[in-house]
Amino acid sequence: MLIRNTVKLIKSLQQKKYRREHALFVVEGGKSVQEVLASDWPLHSVYATAAYLPELAAGLRRRGLDAITVKAAELADMGSYEHNDSALAVLEIPLPAPIRFGDGEYVLVLDDIRDPGNLGTIIRTADWFGIRQIICSPETADLYNPKVLAASMGSFLRVQVHYTALPAFLQAHADRPSYGAFLDGTDVHRTAFEPRGGLLVIGNEAHGIQPELAGLVTHRITIPAYGQAESLNAGIATAILLDNWRQSAQRS
Amino acid sequence: MLIRNTVKLIKSLQQKKYRREHALFVVEGGKSVQEVLASDWPLHSVYATAAYLPELAAGLRRRGLDAITVKAAELADMGSYEHNDSALAVLEIPLPAPIRFGDGEYVLVLDDIRDPGNLGTIIRTADWFGIRQIICSPETADLYNPKVLAASMGSFLRVQVHYTALPAFLQAHADRPSYGAFLDGTDVHRTAFEPRGGLLVIGNEAHGIQPELAGLVTHRITIPAYGQAESLNAGIATAILLDNWRQSAQRS
Repeated sequence: MLIRNTVKLIKSLQQKKYRREHALFVVEGGKSVQEVLASDWPLHSVYATAAYLPELAAGLRRRGLDAITVKAAELADMGSYEHNDSALAVLEIPLPAPIRFGDGEYVLVLDDIRDPGNLGTIIRTADWFGIRQIICSPETADLYNPKVLAASMGSFLRVQVHYTALPAFLQAHADRPSYGAFLDGTDVHRTAFEPRGGLLVIGNEAHGIQPELAGLVTHRITIPAYGQAESLNAGIATAILLDNWRQSAQRS
Repeated sequence: MLIRNTVKLIKSLQQKKYRREHALFVVEGGKSVQEVLASDWPLHSVYATAAYLPELAAGLRRRGLDAITVKAAELADMGSYEHNDSALAVLEIPLPAPIRFGDGEYVLVLDDIRDPGNLGTIIRTADWFGIRQIICSPETADLYNPKVLAASMGSFLRVQVHYTALPAFLQAHADRPSYGAFLDGTDVHRTAFEPRGGLLVIGNEAHGIQPELAGLVTHRITIPAYGQAESLNAGIATAILLDNWRQSAQRS
């Protein structure tokens, strides 16, 4: 049986305010908790049903940790899932890490991606294409939002997500090429992305890249349209940009 | 003031069962209702706030229709949106149309896309890339689900969505090339899609393309991975496939 205050604290982590206050966040579902245990992410505590516990044994041993056994109803009560008959972990929010460019590295820059599902899908897609760092505007959805984590399918463990003011970030890296998706740029299918590394900039779902940032983007590119849709979803545009960036590297 | 039974009927259309019973569905939000009025989709009725009515005047005139003036609270009550201070339309569900292949046409085939947001995003993306017809398995999310319509951003008005048993459909079109996304296929970046038209097959979010269908796919293709994510979101995979199909046509 859990102490009521523990349930209350963990439940409060669904809100950004309390995540910041305690520097903790929650990961839900057995598969995700297994991935957390296999990673080196700093852990606070792990909760699992008696039935699911054996699945976590190897991971817990590796971490030198014990899980707290709870009922499925308690897991659901602590987290955001309607049903959870497997596990839940409480993780530490790390201190902000410095952004360092590797040789030839491309980073993804997100200008106000507000939808948590979009952000999570973008992190998962970035991981697929080997992006290691994502730079988000302060208004972008919070990485530790349960919907972001769920949509990222564990990729948040491998892709570093930073939050910073984007105009200053682009100015500080003005020596690197930056490619931004606009409706009036050059065809992304014919774009040769510079091999020395740079920035891939994606705009807000409704308003695109904000004007202050748009002026700092060195290469305006466009995903060619063949039909009548007015725009693409921000996650979809990111995926097509990343795939074309990888194709360009294959050609050169 | 609306008759209570009208509100109750329209509200019931959020459930598939009642949409089928009445052959009606609901489109919410001013911009979407404007798009509906500009299209030729058969309309049942239009509801708008007095403040928003002028925005619909041209569209209503074109359709020879009057809107029923309601309060914002009534719009929210009738629909799925928490707030709606503009408009809502009730549309007719048309009878199933036959699937006819145009010259060189590619159709999208969706094998059990369960998430309404994914289906809506796929319809929007298909519209961007000029796909005219989508063939869905019976288990795929319902086109007239409010979340599908919202994510499609009006593209449901331009892309025909059919529901049918997919193994029989693929067998009936075995003379056409079919390209399916698998984890072990040939590199989509190097795939030359046949110009005579064919089928692009996308699998379920968790299980991919079902075995019965997989055996009927003539070309197994793969989106190359450069990182560690295990898979891509189904909407993301669709977008990359469609963009590569269009690129392949440019090359040939």
